[in-house]
Amino acid sequence: MTKISDLKGFAYPSPQGVAAVVGDLPWHFGTEHLGILFKTDPDVVASYLPEPLEPGEHPDVVFIEFGKWFSLWESQLDMMFINPERTWYQETVIWVSSSFKGEQGKTCIQTWVDKDFSMARGMFMGFNKKFGQTYKTDPRPVNPKMAPLGIGSKMRGWTCAHGERLMEGTLKITKKIPYAELPSPILLPLFNIRYFPSIVKNAPPSVCELVKMHMEDSRNGEDVWAGEGDIKFFPSEIEEFTRLAPKEVIGAYYYTNGCTITGGEILHNWLTE
Amino acid sequence: MTKISDLKGFAYPSPQGVAAVVGDLPWHFGTEHLGILFKTDPDVVASYLPEPLEPGEHPDVVFIEFGKWFSLWESQLDMMFINPERTWYQETVIWVSSSFKGEQGKTCIQTWVDKDFSMARGMFMGFNKKFGQTYKTDPRPVNPKMAPLGIGSKMRGWTCAHGERLMEGTLKITKKIPYAELPSPILLPLFNIRYFPSIVKNAPPSVCELVKMHMEDSRNGEDVWAGEGDIKFFPSEIEEFTRLAPKEVIGAYYYTNGCTITGGEILHNWLTE
Amino acid sequence: MTKISDLKGFAYPSPQGVAAVVGDLPWHFGTEHLGILFKTDPDVVASYLPEPLEPGEHPDVVFIEFGKWFSLWESQLDMMFINPERTWYQETVIWVSSSFKGEQGKTCIQTWVDKDFSMARGMFMGFNKKFGQTYKTDPRPVNPKMAPLGIGSKMRGWTCAHGERLMEGTLKITKKIPYAELPSPILLPLFNIRYFPSIVKNAPPSVCELVKMHMEDSRNGEDVWAGEGDIKFFPSEIEEFTRLAPKEVIGAYYYTNGCTITGGEILHNWLTE
Amino acid sequence: MTKISDLKGFAYPSPQGVAAVVGDLPWHFGTEHLGILFKTDPDVVASYLPEPLEPGEHPDVVFIEFGKWFSLWESQLDMMFINPERTWYQETVIWVSSSFKGEQGKTCIQTWVDKDFSMARGMFMGFNKKFGQTYKTDPRPVNPKMAPLGIGSKMRGWTCAHGERLMEGTLKITKKIPYAELPSPILLPLFNIRYFPSIVKNAPPSVCELVKMHMEDSRNGEDVWAGEGDIKFFPSEIEEFTRLAPKEVIGAYYYTNGCTITGGEILHNWLTE
Repeated sequence: MTKISDLKGFAYPSPQGVAAVVGDLPWHFGTEHLGILFKTDPDVVASYLPEPLEPGEHPDVVFIEFGKWFSLWESQLDMMFINPERTWYQETVIWVSSSFKGEQGKTCIQTWVDKDFSMARGMFMGFNKKFGQTYKTDPRPVNPKMAPLGIGSKMRGWTCAHGERLMEGTLKITKKIPYAELPSPILLPLFNIRYFPSIVKNAPPSVCELVKMHMEDSRNGEDVWAGEGDIKFFPSEIEEFTRLAPKEVIGAYYYTNGCTITGGEILHNWLTE
Repeated sequence: MTKISDLKGFAYPSPQGVAAVVGDLPWHFGTEHLGILFKTDPDVVASYLPEPLEPGEHPDVVFIEFGKWFSLWESQLDMMFINPERTWYQETVIWVSSSFKGEQGKTCIQTWVDKDFSMARGMFMGFNKKFGQTYKTDPRPVNPKMAPLGIGSKMRGWTCAHGERLMEGTLKITKKIPYAELPSPILLPLFNIRYFPSIVKNAPPSVCELVKMHMEDSRNGEDVWAGEGDIKFFPSEIEEFTRLAPKEVIGAYYYTNGCTITGGEILHNWLTE
Repeated sequence: MTKISDLKGFAYPSPQGVAAVVGDLPWHFGTEHLGILFKTDPDVVASYLPEPLEPGEHPDVVFIEFGKWFSLWESQLDMMFINPERTWYQETVIWVSSSFKGEQGKTCIQTWVDKDFSMARGMFMGFNKKFGQTYKTDPRPVNPKMAPLGIGSKMRGWTCAHGERLMEGTLKITKKIPYAELPSPILLPLFNIRYFPSIVKNAPPSVCELVKMHMEDSRNGEDVWAGEGDIKFFPSEIEEFTRLAPKEVIGAYYYTNGCTITGGEILHNWLTE
Repeated sequence: MTKISDLKGFAYPSPQGVAAVVGDLPWHFGTEHLGILFKTDPDVVASYLPEPLEPGEHPDVVFIEFGKWFSLWESQLDMMFINPERTWYQETVIWVSSSFKGEQGKTCIQTWVDKDFSMARGMFMGFNKKFGQTYKTDPRPVNPKMAPLGIGSKMRGWTCAHGERLMEGTLKITKKIPYAELPSPILLPLFNIRYFPSIVKNAPPSVCELVKMHMEDSRNGEDVWAGEGDIKFFPSEIEEFTRLAPKEVIGAYYYTNGCTITGGEILHNWLTE
């Protein structure tokens, strides 16, 4: 007889463990982001942060990253050769400033991705993931009319899901900045709400925990651009992020970075409180 | 302060609950299936069924459905008007014969879908879901050269994921049969392994339970076709379903059906055994 | 030596002619349409109709079809079995009332499709085709909560391209009508501008002709619904159809039909005028 | 009255010319290619080259590029800001060695792209374009486990269309080479067959000309990698490129380049011979 312990694989157990939609931790990431930082109504931000999670030091701040992500999981580090389609995707992430017992951080409100492994892996890390398309300006200077990014460059990112343009952000580059100067909460730790409903009708969720992700080996690209930005939301009957309506854009940035996520720790379990 | 109980939404809690990728139970389905039933190595089937789940009365039987699915969740029954894109998708499902404490059923081994709401909802019900494209023959007789299905019609379905054709199935219709004559385990109850990993490295999963789905209001379309079938698998470095290699095709069928899933019950929790 | 006459294939000549993106005439179609008929500024309509093409008897009328199309070409009538993916697609078409030497007709202004064979075949017939997604309400009554279309049903169609929602149309069904009562110009002949640029810089186009498509074997589905409709356009920096802004919706309809297109005739060649 | 000369737009005439799927020449390109060069049956190559086009100095040579393309047209050089989705795509191109009146060149046999503007623009330049997905290894060193390309790196590219994997190519990098050493016919001029069928049944095509594309401002990236390669074809009932079955892989390369295409010249018109 087969025992449950005979089945292998991080994301859904199977006899060989090779068909898992997501492989084993650690997970390695490299990203390119067009990020727009803005202020909104702090009461709306707070409505997304259930105690013991709390608003952060900048309780009215939201930042949105229009990004391209390159990823590998530890159990298939040769995936760039096995099937490169499994190694990158485009994603939009909405983050807010948050804190846990005085430690400053950021919490993801919603994301849209275009690959299954990113959607599942995100759910495992507590990201509220759905499918959508993200595009951002991506010049390749080997094209005679695509100058490299620099002072004066204009960039745009957008998100589209279920046939609707959800949002657009722009950046007009005015200066280069050191990576460490990316403002709070961009570089802060990740506090996410990990959630998995029960399939029993009206039962409490099977998973409802506050988690902090552990990262190591962080690095960033040399060029970190900053400048004037803009963010625009479009209405949708089936989205609610528009409640975080931009009141004032604080900054806009373009940066690349990477890290290894070794796993997470459970800060709080709402099922046992 | 926001409390966890202030957040709403079946799939992931949010202030308004309107952006959930999947809405509330019950869930309502209508489907069109090209199904191929075949025999394989019973040891391979058994390797997917961890006790107390067991092989079924036909321990060597697999069936694969190439389907089109039409669905609604209870909290947004008007979704066909709000956004029709959220109401249908194409899916391939691999099922095996199984049993639980003598009750005969079927268990899903793997599925590929093309919409996020189907992927997430499937994970909540214990389906091992990934993204892929499914197509099946779909004649529309208002086209002068697309005769309605009938004796002699030939049909094909296929599945493609991460850039690879995974499988193809065919049916040559020879007769009409009553819906109730669809062979075991097609019409049997669903016993699935519901799984959600922990994000703590090396920790046991957060959810690992055997569930049975509850259905009501089952109905089927009038035309249920049967005939000669064929199923062909293609190799992939990142899939393992090919271990269920077809030895003998038992039958091939085309049918439509629908039901309401009211929720599930937990038959066994591997975390507490 | 190979001669040009050795190469075969309707849409791009090759040694075997089997890889053609579009196969030989005649072409057979079956369609499902949510159509919205409205009035706009007749000067804008006229700006799309170069003489000898002229405005039609309803010079201010536009209709937009959100559709699902099922098609076959004569050289591969078994394509539903060979590869069903090549036999259907979703498309939005914008039509205006037009006329040629007193004969009433309709002219396509712009269309968006989601398959290559439809895009190429459309270009060959004089349709201005681009890629985009179209969805329309598509109830399947085998789903317990999807009632068949009837009086009181509400339907929506939408178009999305390059990440932007372009338009939406709705229908609230109030009655059934005979197919022949679908208003002008829905059932009228097709007069299109067939165009293919030269690759020589600044040269006149290689093809610029007014064509009329020839149809036979027309048929339609039994149910033809009519009712109250709405159409809404969204702005885009890279589309111009919004100039045909709806002033008054005349009607909204749901119908299915099919035909065989045997080819076209050249009514006028702008290159030789 | 509107005159045909009132309509603007490179790809299809319209009142404003802003919705054209492809804008004006010149066109600017930047590309990244994984290229595999191999020998096949010279008779098969010759079957694709109708006189006065002839086989080239390497009559049995084929090369296949799995690429990512970044492009702009002259009339909307700010497209990277207007809508970045319109500025890049992934493409596989099959080329053979060819010649015209003694001038050595290359001719495209077939290509698969994933954006409409690339499909239409390709048709205008004489490329036999269809839709498909292409992926190639794309390391981003900001990911801790994605080393930059170098000696020992392994790369793979693949093409998938209408739900079938069509081909795969691999490269194991052994050395760096100067760009100018990329072997014939990779860097040679482009001789393509430009073709547009008539819509009149059984009529000769409206366009059937041999064209040579004019390029300027060519440049390339610094790193040009070479090494051991492999190419594998998969069967399909609706493709014929498999006739160019690889007999011997000559080389495999990874390079980036760019140029401006100013237009083309007609070398021969089959309609007037």
